[in-house]
Amino acid sequence: MHKGETMLKKTVHHCAFALALIAAPAFAAQWEPLPEKAPEPADNPTTAAKVELGKMLYFDPRFSKTGTVSCNSCHNLMEGGDDSRPVSFGVFGKKGGRNAPTVWNAAFHSVQFWDGRAPSLEEQAKGPVVNPVEMGMPTLEDAMKRVRQIPAYREYFVKAFGEDNPMTVDNAAKAVAAFERTLITPNSPYDRYVKGDKSAMTEQQVRGMNTFAQVGCTACHSGPAFNGPKLPEGKGFFQKFPVFDNELIKKYGLDEDLGRYEVTKKESDKHMFRVPTLRNVADTAPYFHNGAVPTLEEAVRIMAKSQLNRDLSDAQVADIVAFLNALTGEYPKIEMPRLPATPGTTLVTE
Amino acid sequence: MHKGETMLKKTVHHCAFALALIAAPAFAAQWEPLPEKAPEPADNPTTAAKVELGKMLYFDPRFSKTGTVSCNSCHNLMEGGDDSRPVSFGVFGKKGGRNAPTVWNAAFHSVQFWDGRAPSLEEQAKGPVVNPVEMGMPTLEDAMKRVRQIPAYREYFVKAFGEDNPMTVDNAAKAVAAFERTLITPNSPYDRYVKGDKSAMTEQQVRGMNTFAQVGCTACHSGPAFNGPKLPEGKGFFQKFPVFDNELIKKYGLDEDLGRYEVTKKESDKHMFRVPTLRNVADTAPYFHNGAVPTLEEAVRIMAKSQLNRDLSDAQVADIVAFLNALTGEYPKIEMPRLPATPGTTLVTE
Repeated sequence: MHKGETMLKKTVHHCAFALALIAAPAFAAQWEPLPEKAPEPADNPTTAAKVELGKMLYFDPRFSKTGTVSCNSCHNLMEGGDDSRPVSFGVFGKKGGRNAPTVWNAAFHSVQFWDGRAPSLEEQAKGPVVNPVEMGMPTLEDAMKRVRQIPAYREYFVKAFGEDNPMTVDNAAKAVAAFERTLITPNSPYDRYVKGDKSAMTEQQVRGMNTFAQVGCTACHSGPAFNGPKLPEGKGFFQKFPVFDNELIKKYGLDEDLGRYEVTKKESDKHMFRVPTLRNVADTAPYFHNGAVPTLEEAVRIMAKSQLNRDLSDAQVADIVAFLNALTGEYPKIEMPRLPATPGTTLVTE
Repeated sequence: MHKGETMLKKTVHHCAFALALIAAPAFAAQWEPLPEKAPEPADNPTTAAKVELGKMLYFDPRFSKTGTVSCNSCHNLMEGGDDSRPVSFGVFGKKGGRNAPTVWNAAFHSVQFWDGRAPSLEEQAKGPVVNPVEMGMPTLEDAMKRVRQIPAYREYFVKAFGEDNPMTVDNAAKAVAAFERTLITPNSPYDRYVKGDKSAMTEQQVRGMNTFAQVGCTACHSGPAFNGPKLPEGKGFFQKFPVFDNELIKKYGLDEDLGRYEVTKKESDKHMFRVPTLRNVADTAPYFHNGAVPTLEEAVRIMAKSQLNRDLSDAQVADIVAFLNALTGEYPKIEMPRLPATPGTTLVTE
């Protein structure tokens, strides 16, 4: 296992370099539609009861220090699953350091966060709750104490996890993760196109799709979610960013964040980031880990230059952007949850 | 008109005093259920198209300076139409000065805000957008510029207001107000009780209802929304608070806010506040204009003492609180709106 991991990393490491050396086409991209269902871990099969509870927890701001920040505050399901901002605001107007990744189709990522530090959606769900610049709770237990003070939550935990001590941090995280596994967006023009509806994409989008493959974007942005090869949950697909330095990198400060190195402190992890999904990427501006790049055009130009050492023409950029717009899927309709009340009192006195 | 207004104010002014002098019962309360529909102004009849647009605008945080604060941030429709907080947090972690009133059944108020400074829901909707401690936009036109930059909003404005310059601040406010007029919560246990279902309220709740009337709460908290007599839109029902000073007033700093005086600068408006609805009051803790009182029990005790100069027994308080819990209605199911995108770019760079 360990050896395999090392080899995988090496491959990943050198992949962008290798691609830059390959002359254009020759790259037979595998085009795959988004599955109708996200993968589930064996120890947390998705059930309707978990999804119902997880949805409530996801939207409930009362587990943040100030009672103002829920998962949905930064991963807004009424929008692209993010917050339109370069970096998010948490409690007390504190700003985060990285752009909020979209929660839509996050279930197709094998690790979570820009630096892949969470091996699962379950672990990811716990992070922001105790991050001082996000939800700002002192401990996860403090957050759970608040959940337990809301009488009607109990029945939902019992329904989802049984009578035996259901109201735990781990179960809350499992419920949120189960809900998030339902947040997938099938039937984009791209999906309909690769399933056979040749009218689903415009001519420009088809051209952009070919350019996308030919210039080498698919080296990393492959698979049904355009985030790399299918890996077991917990094993991340990372890439160095930037590989080739250039003036755009400096302009947007894109080399200031050491990425995964901040977690592992391993030299080889410097500037390594998880390869993000491109699903609904048109709805998740601004771009990159620092959210410094306001448009998709500029993001495409930067990726080509910094990862593939290519200068794209304006027409190529426009075509790829058109293609990326074809990755915007159908967002499921969601009924707002009713958050259980604390009749006659409040949990938030901050 | 002006004379009538003065007389009304006088009546209102002295009402609490008068009541305190009346020996208990003798007060035949009129118990009315909540109407199924809220009143609509002649110049903004509610239409499905306006409601649809208004719902999107209500939930859209992109018209705040930071892109983080929507109407729903402080008037959360997944909860009691407020935010569980003493006072709200706006952009950049700035705190407001007053407790966020519930938006549920706000359409049954003839004026809006604690000090009644907005004569309609339409006017109210504009306030928070440009309040520096709420949504923090420099001007309403700046907010409207953002709306206009979101391509798909146009079709919704056209549908609601026609082709002739539909994207105006006034129309946006009209749409939000139209949506808010749908936010009513009928069929509370109280409503079912007064309509004839004598099993809808518990014995304690019925006792509490009688106590509520007997001690004089209904002097101000009358009518179907328990917020006073039916008045034309724009004409407020105000009361002095506190009338009788006492140690609880001091404890919670309840006499520090001069209320309507801050708007009119008229001596007679000092400490005058709009009488708020008691509908769903159990779901809107903490209480009063400064949100300093964390429980409904304490709020009831304070009102009896400061408005009616009465010391209620613990049993009386418990009964009234039980009754007030019977005013929690049925919240309508709401499908989350999908907020129109700005494909490949963002409006928020702050």
